[in-house]
Amino acid sequence: MQFIEHPRELSSFLDQHSIVLCDQNTAEYCYPLLPLELPLIVIPAGERSKNLDSCQAVWSKLMELGADRQSRLICLGGGMICDLGAFCASVYQRGIEFSLLPTSLLAMVDAAIGGKNGVDFLEHKNYLGLFSQNQNTIICADFLESLPREQWVNGYAEMLKHGLIYDKDHFQDCLRQKEGSLPGLNLINRSIEIKLKHTERDFKELGIRKRLNFGHTIGHAIESLSFKSQTQIEHGMAVLWGMLGEAYLSHKYWSLSKDDLQQIENGIKPLLKQHENIDLNFHALYKLMLKDKKNLRDQVQFALLNSLGSAQENLPLQAEQIESGIRYLARFK
Amino acid sequence: MQFIEHPRELSSFLDQHSIVLCDQNTAEYCYPLLPLELPLIVIPAGERSKNLDSCQAVWSKLMELGADRQSRLICLGGGMICDLGAFCASVYQRGIEFSLLPTSLLAMVDAAIGGKNGVDFLEHKNYLGLFSQNQNTIICADFLESLPREQWVNGYAEMLKHGLIYDKDHFQDCLRQKEGSLPGLNLINRSIEIKLKHTERDFKELGIRKRLNFGHTIGHAIESLSFKSQTQIEHGMAVLWGMLGEAYLSHKYWSLSKDDLQQIENGIKPLLKQHENIDLNFHALYKLMLKDKKNLRDQVQFALLNSLGSAQENLPLQAEQIESGIRYLARFK
Repeated sequence: MQFIEHPRELSSFLDQHSIVLCDQNTAEYCYPLLPLELPLIVIPAGERSKNLDSCQAVWSKLMELGADRQSRLICLGGGMICDLGAFCASVYQRGIEFSLLPTSLLAMVDAAIGGKNGVDFLEHKNYLGLFSQNQNTIICADFLESLPREQWVNGYAEMLKHGLIYDKDHFQDCLRQKEGSLPGLNLINRSIEIKLKHTERDFKELGIRKRLNFGHTIGHAIESLSFKSQTQIEHGMAVLWGMLGEAYLSHKYWSLSKDDLQQIENGIKPLLKQHENIDLNFHALYKLMLKDKKNLRDQVQFALLNSLGSAQENLPLQAEQIESGIRYLARFK
Repeated sequence: MQFIEHPRELSSFLDQHSIVLCDQNTAEYCYPLLPLELPLIVIPAGERSKNLDSCQAVWSKLMELGADRQSRLICLGGGMICDLGAFCASVYQRGIEFSLLPTSLLAMVDAAIGGKNGVDFLEHKNYLGLFSQNQNTIICADFLESLPREQWVNGYAEMLKHGLIYDKDHFQDCLRQKEGSLPGLNLINRSIEIKLKHTERDFKELGIRKRLNFGHTIGHAIESLSFKSQTQIEHGMAVLWGMLGEAYLSHKYWSLSKDDLQQIENGIKPLLKQHENIDLNFHALYKLMLKDKKNLRDQVQFALLNSLGSAQENLPLQAEQIESGIRYLARFK
């Protein structure tokens, strides 16, 4: 992984073998900042595009552009572009090189770190994908300036999570951020560091890496369910809801103290905005959770908090227990 | 890789986490030979099924069966099932275990050996796929008995190729086979050994593994072109044509002697049956060859024969040169 200050420094990473993948937004706001002109593939923006249809569009276009095994795909965008682009490159002609240039806070602290890629299948998140060791991530904080403010919360949610599962101080430092302002580079770096600590020790997610899923078992279900409705809930917002629900479960069925739960509630509650439309139907959510990739034999597995800054993976909960977490969430609608 | 004699010995490889993938034929003739009853996924037979639509059917069915990361996909079939099944398993939930149980001669000596998997995309062969280290191949010669005799030629062509590129004696031993009879286990083993010699030394196909593509640059183009016509030409038959054409190119533009070419012609000619309908339109074939995965920057790269039993990879030829090889083939229609 490399840090650069300005997109012009990308000239040493790009050459005539590079092909750029963008969504409609990054094609408009980020692609023009690149220091040389390169072939461009554009797909529609948004999490709904993270599917096999988009992959097929990318593969067709790669063929059309004459991409061969010397080619390199430059994934310039948020989490969707990084996840989908890395997957497309990894299977095109049995694998071409790719680089991730995350442009969103979410992608910088999460999607572009740790080598997971994938796309959604049917209504299930990241059901098709790979662990891919050979990726190259370049963090250029300048791109963040192009990101609409309302999307910062998506990355911010993951940063709070890094604090919650590993570093209490980081959680509190993040909360002290001035509301609506972009987190400083020091906080972004700390989040990347925490994510790498988990992914490098457990690349294939057999153990501690699963702790990064805190908030995501309920969160992914909320996100997936919202795909079917009019008001789609973004990943970060869904994860905030998920963390709140799973913090409650950590208190009720694991060792998180009442005080710690209260601190988490106080920290997250102000961030939950305008979600009177959120669908908290337990049966619909539970059905989705039953397809969570971390499950073992129909048993939903959670990563829960031991305390603020410490987590534990592989904790199974029963349907009734999970339901109590969803009921708790209903208070915050 | 493991050799067993009878399908009943499979009981030590199968358990309640196993899910079997078959095509319609192996579901009828091979699946019933398994020593325990297991969930079954069936897709239509034939190379035309080796595409993303079939993958989506497999992934949907895996979800329906509740497959999780403990599950193992048992690919019971010919090359298509092995290639497609390994790919499906490798990306489902970012990879579940799989075993290959090749039932055809072609799959035993080729598709199930060496860790390549993939599916066709648009009209291009194996354009989406992976190199997958974690496969487990079990060769059970008994399954061959279920294979229609007219399909033996598919595997036989690859066995001849192994001889041509690496072992002159093996080529001649294969030719001495009684016509229409199944090659003996010793010949099958020798072919597997030759394939492994190439794939183990060069897993990612950066060098000598490309020699296994002898006959396949022209062969794949003939096979792909036939997909668009009424009379589909099977892989092995297409490879026989391809080897003949590329042997001619090896003589004309590389170091294969006239005598060696004559031996190859004498060996292969009797195997080319009933192909008056074969489409040898150079422009259509060349257009397909330009999409060959081994190409570098629009230059078609061949593996050619130095002499009987010895090959060399990465040899570029010009369009006019390749055309002379196709014209040569027209004599044998």
